[in-house]
This record gives sequence, C-alpha cells and structure tokens, in this order.
Amino acid sequence: MAPPEHDAPFNLRRFLLSGGGWPYVLVPLIPLAIALELLDASSSLIFASSALGVIPTAALMGRATEELADRAGPGIGGLLNVTFGNFPELLIAFFALIAGLQEVVKASLIGSVLGNTLLVLGGAMLVGGLGHERQTFNRRAATAQATMLLLASAALVLPAVFQLVDGGGLPPIATEEVDFSSSVENLSLAVAIVLLASYCGGLLFSLKTHRDLFNPPGDVDEEDGEHEPWTIKRSVTLLAVAGLAVGLMSEILVGSIEETAESVGLSQFFIGVIIVAVVGNAAEHWVAVYVAAKDKMDLAVNIAVGSSAQVALFVAPVLVILSFFFGDHPLALVFNGFELAGVLLAVLIASHVTSQGESTWFEGLLLLALYTMMGVTFYLA
Amino acid sequence: MAPPEHDAPFNLRRFLLSGGGWPYVLVPLIPLAIALELLDASSSLIFASSALGVIPTAALMGRATEELADRAGPGIGGLLNVTFGNFPELLIAFFALIAGLQEVVKASLIGSVLGNTLLVLGGAMLVGGLGHERQTFNRRAATAQATMLLLASAALVLPAVFQLVDGGGLPPIATEEVDFSSSVENLSLAVAIVLLASYCGGLLFSLKTHRDLFNPPGDVDEEDGEHEPWTIKRSVTLLAVAGLAVGLMSEILVGSIEETAESVGLSQFFIGVIIVAVVGNAAEHWVAVYVAAKDKMDLAVNIAVGSSAQVALFVAPVLVILSFFFGDHPLALVFNGFELAGVLLAVLIASHVTSQGESTWFEGLLLLALYTMMGVTFYLA
Amino acid sequence: MAPPEHDAPFNLRRFLLSGGGWPYVLVPLIPLAIALELLDASSSLIFASSALGVIPTAALMGRATEELADRAGPGIGGLLNVTFGNFPELLIAFFALIAGLQEVVKASLIGSVLGNTLLVLGGAMLVGGLGHERQTFNRRAATAQATMLLLASAALVLPAVFQLVDGGGLPPIATEEVDFSSSVENLSLAVAIVLLASYCGGLLFSLKTHRDLFNPPGDVDEEDGEHEPWTIKRSVTLLAVAGLAVGLMSEILVGSIEETAESVGLSQFFIGVIIVAVVGNAAEHWVAVYVAAKDKMDLAVNIAVGSSAQVALFVAPVLVILSFFFGDHPLALVFNGFELAGVLLAVLIASHVTSQGESTWFEGLLLLALYTMMGVTFYLA
Repeated sequence: MAPPEHDAPFNLRRFLLSGGGWPYVLVPLIPLAIALELLDASSSLIFASSALGVIPTAALMGRATEELADRAGPGIGGLLNVTFGNFPELLIAFFALIAGLQEVVKASLIGSVLGNTLLVLGGAMLVGGLGHERQTFNRRAATAQATMLLLASAALVLPAVFQLVDGGGLPPIATEEVDFSSSVENLSLAVAIVLLASYCGGLLFSLKTHRDLFNPPGDVDEEDGEHEPWTIKRSVTLLAVAGLAVGLMSEILVGSIEETAESVGLSQFFIGVIIVAVVGNAAEHWVAVYVAAKDKMDLAVNIAVGSSAQVALFVAPVLVILSFFFGDHPLALVFNGFELAGVLLAVLIASHVTSQGESTWFEGLLLLALYTMMGVTFYLA
Repeated sequence: MAPPEHDAPFNLRRFLLSGGGWPYVLVPLIPLAIALELLDASSSLIFASSALGVIPTAALMGRATEELADRAGPGIGGLLNVTFGNFPELLIAFFALIAGLQEVVKASLIGSVLGNTLLVLGGAMLVGGLGHERQTFNRRAATAQATMLLLASAALVLPAVFQLVDGGGLPPIATEEVDFSSSVENLSLAVAIVLLASYCGGLLFSLKTHRDLFNPPGDVDEEDGEHEPWTIKRSVTLLAVAGLAVGLMSEILVGSIEETAESVGLSQFFIGVIIVAVVGNAAEHWVAVYVAAKDKMDLAVNIAVGSSAQVALFVAPVLVILSFFFGDHPLALVFNGFELAGVLLAVLIASHVTSQGESTWFEGLLLLALYTMMGVTFYLA
Repeated sequence: MAPPEHDAPFNLRRFLLSGGGWPYVLVPLIPLAIALELLDASSSLIFASSALGVIPTAALMGRATEELADRAGPGIGGLLNVTFGNFPELLIAFFALIAGLQEVVKASLIGSVLGNTLLVLGGAMLVGGLGHERQTFNRRAATAQATMLLLASAALVLPAVFQLVDGGGLPPIATEEVDFSSSVENLSLAVAIVLLASYCGGLLFSLKTHRDLFNPPGDVDEEDGEHEPWTIKRSVTLLAVAGLAVGLMSEILVGSIEETAESVGLSQFFIGVIIVAVVGNAAEHWVAVYVAAKDKMDLAVNIAVGSSAQVALFVAPVLVILSFFFGDHPLALVFNGFELAGVLLAVLIASHVTSQGESTWFEGLLLLALYTMMGVTFYLA
C-alpha cells in the first residue's frame, strides 16, 4: 500500500509496460499450472498456480489490445479496448457456467463490481492522495459512468425482487446451482437485452457523440512517446496467444474451484466473489493505482468505474445470453443477499465519492475499509 | 422517439396549444367510451376508449388552468396550476378507491412517480439531448424538488417497514384489497398529514420565499406572446367542462379495470402501475419532451420531477385522508415489493441524474432503459 | 422553532456560554434525581429527572473540554474535543450494556445518528434559513463527513445482512437482549475494528493532513474574544466533576428505563431511539441551531454530520469492543428493521442535502418532517 517513491515512477512504468513487466514475473506459473493439472496434483496447488497464471496472460492481452487500438484510431481502437478489456473475466465466468457453477459465476460478477468500485478506486484514491493534497478528475465523465453503474445495479436487483415477491427465496450461499422458474429466467434475459442495448448506447456516447469527455486532449500522445509501437502482425499474434493462454488458465482454474473450496475450507461463494474477481482484474488494478500515483486521476477513475460498468452492462448480459445455449439451464440473475447488499452499497458510495470530481487519500481509505469489511462478512458466510 | 425536426417546432407547438392540438384528435373517443359503456360492450374496448378519452380531457383541463393562472398572477396562478395539475390522477385514483381497488390505487401512485422520473425525464433528456451536446438546467431548483421526492419516498416506505417488522407480509400482487391492522392505518394517516404539511411548505417555498428559483425571468413572457389569451369566463367554463369529462372518463375507466385485467390476461397491478399511470400523465409527458426539444430543460425537469413530488406529497396523502371517509376501509400506504423497490431505485437515480444540473441524451437513454426493465418485471409478475 | 431575534444573539450567547447558561437551569434536577433514586420513588419520575439532569452535566463537560482544547492548540485540542464530545452518549450506552439492555444500546446509537442528521441538521437549516435566503457551507468538508457516514451506515448494515442470509431473523422490537451466533459476534468485532481504524484515519485527516478544511481561518478567534478563558486547573477539575455527574445521571437513567417503559407504556426501543438519543445530544443540538441562526452553517453542519459520524465510527465500535469484557455476552451489531431502514434513509438524504454546500429553510423542514414521521413509526411499534 506504500506509494511509489517520487523518482521511481519512470522505471516502474517502463518495467510495467515492457515485455519484462512485473506481471510477467508470474509467467512460469503458466506451465506449472498445466503440469500440475496433468499430474493430477492437489487441487489447491492447481487453483493457486492457475489463478496467478491468469495475471500475466491478462496483462499481455491488455497490452496487445492497446497496441492494436493505437493503430486503429480512436473509434475502432476504443471498441477493441472495450471488447477485449473484460475478456479474461468473461472467459473465466464462461467456463464456470459450463461447469455448472452458476453461483460462482454470479459471485465473480458482483465481485468484479465490488473490486473495481471499492478496492481499485479506493487504492487509487489512497495511493494517489498520499502525494497530493487533493486530486481532481472530470466530474462529467465520472458521473456518466456512475449513472451507468447505478442503472446496472438497479437492473441486477430486479430479478431478485421478482423472486422475493413471487415467494421464492434468494439462492443460499452453500449451493452451486439453483433452478429458478422460467419467469425469472425470461426476466433475466429481458434485463440482459436491455442492458446490452444500454451498453451499445454507452459505446456510441463515449466513442462517438461525447468522445472528448473520455479523451482529454494531449493525454494519449504523452503515453505513446515512451515505447516502440508493435506491428499489427505482432499485436494480433500476441493477442491470439494471450487469448489461448487466458482460456487455458481459466479452464484449469475453474476445474479446481470445487475441490479447492472443500479442501481449503472456503465457500465457493467467497472464492468467486473475492479471489476469482481479484485475479481477473489484477492487471487493471495495478494500472489504476499506478496512474493515480502519477496524478492521472481521470484515467484511474475511468478504469475503476468504467470496468465495473462494463462488467454489469456487458459481461453479465453476455453470460445470461450464452447460458441459453450452453450449460444445463439458463442463468437467472438472482443474486444472493450478500451480493445484493454489497453491490447496492458499493455503487451508492462510489457514485457519491466520484460526484464531486475530487478525491483525497481519506476517501480512498474509506472505500478500502468497506471492501475489507465486506470481505470479512463474505469470509464468515 | 425521433426528435422533432428543427423547423417543425413552431407548427407543432401551435397545433399542440391550439384547440385542434394533438390530444384533441382523441376527443371522439369520449362519446365512444360513453356509448360502449351504455351498450355494455366488451370491457377491454371500454377500457381502451376511456383510457384514451382521459387524455384530451386532461389536456383541456391543463390548458384552462394555465389560462386562468396567467390572469391570476404568479402566486394564485401557481397555486391553481399545482392544484389542478394532478386532478386527473387524483380523480382516477379516487374512483378506484371507492370501487375497492386499493391495490390499483397504490400501483397508480407509484406508477406516476416511476413514469415521471424515468419515462418523462428520460424521454425529455433523450429527445432534448439529440439536438444538443449538453443541456443545462437550474441545479438548485432540481435539487430542491429531488429532495422533496427523496423525503416522500422515504416516507412512503415507512408503513411497509412497519408492516414487515410487525411480522405481517407485504400485499401480494394478485389482490384487490388487503385489510391492514389499525396501527398501520393510523401510521399511514400520520405520514399523510406530515407529507401534506411538507407539501404546503413546498408551496410557500416555490410560490413565495424562493419564487425566482422556479420562474426564471423572461421565460413566461415568451410563452404568452404566441396566442390570444382566454377570457376568465371561457377558462372557468372549460375548466368545469373538462373536470366533468375527466370525472366521467375516470369512472368508466375504473369500472372496466377488473374485467379487462381478466380478459386481457394482465394483472390489475400492471394496469395500475403502467397503463393508468401513463394515461393519467400523458399530456404532461408530451409537454415535457416537447419543451426539452426546444432546450427548455428547466421546464422539462420541473414538470418531470415536480409532478412526481406532487403525486407523492399531495395526491397520495389526500387519497389516504379521503379513504377514512369513503370506501370500505382506510387506505394503508403499504406498498408491495415491486412498488417499494421501483420507487426507491427510480428516485435515487433521478436525484443522481439531476444533481449536476446537466444532461445528455445518454442519461435519458439510461432512464428509459430502467423504465423498460421495470415494465417487463411488472408484466411478468 | 422561532428564530432568535436579530438583536438577541449576543445576550443569548453570553447566557449560553456563561456559567449560568440555559442548560444550567436544569442543574437542580441532578440532586432531585439522586434523591428520588435513594427514596425509591416512581421510576418514571426518576427517569424524567435523570434524563433532564444529563443535559447540564453534558453541557458543562463540553464547555470544560473546549476550554482545555483552546489551551492545548489545534492538534491535541481537536483530539480532546472529539474524544470527550460523545462521552455522555458513550457512558449512557455503557451502563445500558452492563444492565443487559443491548437493544436499548443499539437503539440509542441509531437514534443518535437519526437525531443528528435529521433533527439537528434539519433544525439548523430551518432556523438558519428563516433569516437568510440561502446559506452556504464548505462542500468539501461536508462531503468528507457524509462519506464517513455513508461508509459507517454500510458497515452497520453488514451484520444484519449476515444474520438474514444466515436464516436468522432480525431482533424483534419487544426484546431486551438477543443471543446471536458467535459468527455474528465475531463479524461485529471485525466491523468495529475496521470502523475504529477508519475513525483514526479521519482524525489524521481532519486534525493533520486536511486541517484547513475544518478550521476556516478567523473563525476561532472571533469566538474566543468574548469570554475570559478558564485556567487549565479549573478546566480539568470541572471536566472531572462533569464526568462524574454524567456517569451518575447515566446510571440512574439506565436503571429506570425498564420500569418506566412498562409504566408509561412506551417500548424500550422508543425510549432508546428517541428519548435517550435526544437527551444525550441535547447540548450539541442547541449549539448547532444557535450557530446556524448566526449564519455559521459550516459549524452547524460540522456538528450535525460530524457527530453522527462519530457515533457510528467511534461510539458504536468502542461499545462492541467493551461488550467482550463487560456484560453477559458480546454486543452484535444486528439492528432491527426500523433501525436499518431509518439509518439508511436518513444518511442517504443527509448526504444528498449536504452535497451542494447550500441550504434553505425548506430543506430543513423536509429533514424535520422525516424525523417526525420516523418518530411516529417508532412510537406505534
């Protein structure tokens, strides 16, 4: 949690963005995870190695996407960034869906939102605020994203309200999969379609009609000058390699969740809502905190709040739609009590904290405190 | 949903405000509804014709009130506008109360709030925002109204909390009328009285101590120049005629709800929360979207948020008080789960969206998306 | 509720701050309470006299703390003020804890938050706004405190969510003490520790890194000129005397709650959430309204929102930790339905009302209206 020292950023950044950046220290865990899986080793070892193995592949994927996006120009580039930005989360959740771990899928979705709005935003505000009395960011861009997030949370609550009013209970913590009524499944599909349509509207808004809001002039150039751009061929190749690796790690990871939960004594819910969610977003987490320390709060808030919104408006609906074609039965967006309370409280506080376009280290501390308390609550569940 | 073309407003406006304005196209449905009622025709035909027949009578009523208000000066005029502004909703709900359809009454109240904060505000922001990159409105006036609305929602939740803590359940969707304990009825009365007192405070605030906030200079004059003012006699006469017609249509409409619900396969709850609410506010809906397209966002926000606040702080309490004198038993303000979740989520998001004093088309889209998802949820109930 | 007249403040203030200030009119109730207790008089008489007797002792305590703080300089002085500021609430709650009245403890905590955010803030905004069209205060300081309060409310909700998801019910209104599972007790302890850590962060923030935010230049000097400062010896002596008196009154008060509740026909919940909470904060209440009337809204908002935050982030956690050493069994922070709904609604509205850095009398009225409605709801429970 210590802030980067003031003369460190330049080297750290080069390290981060270079092929030998810190996430790549974890590369050896990729073959290790594969080997452990093939050797049928202890599931918790497989889980740990594949979870850590996801991180460098996700980082490479992000890097390759950015390189490609730089060449494609802001419109298509933004679309690329956005589409592939949540690919690791999507892939992990997809494999969990096929494996019948629907409650893990939902937990990891909510966990992503909580992680981004509390852990990432909190970390960025705290670390960034240690070196600056007050950091500012574009209130309009932050508000637009917070509104998306508020809408999405409201939407994600509706099927649970339906289920409760209908007399059914919320899914208990200790289950893998609950079979809901077809009304709830259809409602989830309808919610998913409207959320995806809103998401498309959001793309039009951020990439076209109000592009300037999200791309302050001069910001991009400064970034680009620091390294040699990749060729398109290299970008595409590495994107494909990274995609395959993410897929492989995700499948191994998901395959080891059930046994790991049992042997380590954690609930599948906790693994989904905290561990899987943190792993899936680890690369972005680092970047958000890192740019905050460099006082680029616009970018940090954009990553934190924007990623949450993407998970809720893109990843969740896509999974619902995929669930009608893959897996045992459709995914109903009926979250359990912890997930509902968690997402509503987190989103309310995040929208409050970002509404003024300013932050201090103390607000970051408060967000991290809430994440900690939620984590303890989920752990004891 | 397409925005009015840029050279169209003038004619549209003249059409709207003239005796032959668009709502008046629906005038023939008034005698039709009466005829169908007398002929004992199919209830769904009676419902449809009387529902559409409410619209022109409400429009005429609004027009006559405005004419009278213009002559009475801002103080009394504002009072007139406010008093008669929600007369159609009040009358429909009153007839439903007498007919013992208490759940329809409550659904239509919540439906009015949802319709105004999501459908009307969303439509206004979307249509207005299509022609303008960013529209601004008076943040102070909007905040004052949003605070009223937040207070009212909190108040409307209290009897349900009481009922739940007391061990009673919320009213199920498929009922017409639930008999609550006298504690809940008395609590509803107390809440109603405090809400009415707050409403009187609001009148004092908006018509007297902080009048300038709601009447930006020059706004009114511009409107007035475009047509010949009515005489007082004409205004009063037409107000009386419109009042009678609204009453007649409302009674026919309410009388057909039960059978229509059965024959069309919709719940009375859905009819109340979506259809009756939209019909009762149709004229205002159009005006809000129309003025937003002309970039008068102050007026549009005022209509949308102000109407919601009026329903919650004036119409709902008046109905509770009337229910102690008319109908089988007092109206307890215990809303069902959908209504509670809907009103809390809608009001939170509306207060967030209006807090910055700015809007874009995207925020409008998000509000409409939420209304759509709520509509689907209520439909499946 | 009438505002002080414009030439009155000077005398009122002197009266308030002098040894003969208004709370000291209640001093005779201190020996009376003691006498009634010794004579084993009617419990409701004991309750009333000791409740009123708390007020002057709390006022003296506040005065002595301020005198000491003035001599200690801003850093230590602020710490002193903050530490002793909630001493009366803490002491009353501590005696209730020992007496096994855990539900009264929790009710008085929530009652303090409600009282400060609705009654005190509302009273200050209403009275202050009567003499001024619009009052402004530091939006940044208010937002920081509102964020603390939002975090704390979210935290205080978590054990109840845990309890509900776990299948246990919320504590019923008509109980003195519920024995919760050890998971819930441990969760409460964890929440308490994180809240206390956040509180320490808040002290660092308000007394060190962002001190200017809470101490606008010139504000303090103006206050100090008006009276002769106390010596350190006098301050410490009177602080000790006041502390003893608060302790004595608190013990007598708590000892009479059970019988009073029975004989007067009020629930212990109502006594805790309304009466004890108002009595414990009475001195601060008066000061907040008084400074608001003098247009010092910064101070008024600071007192109202800051006190609520202190109760939630300091008093509540300290009581939880103490409960592991004193009393029958640990205090679980599982609030009942009224408390949960009340604190969430109050905090949301308070954070909305303070987010703009401006207030009018009407916002004050709305806050008071909500407090009234909550009071009626709790009374009927």
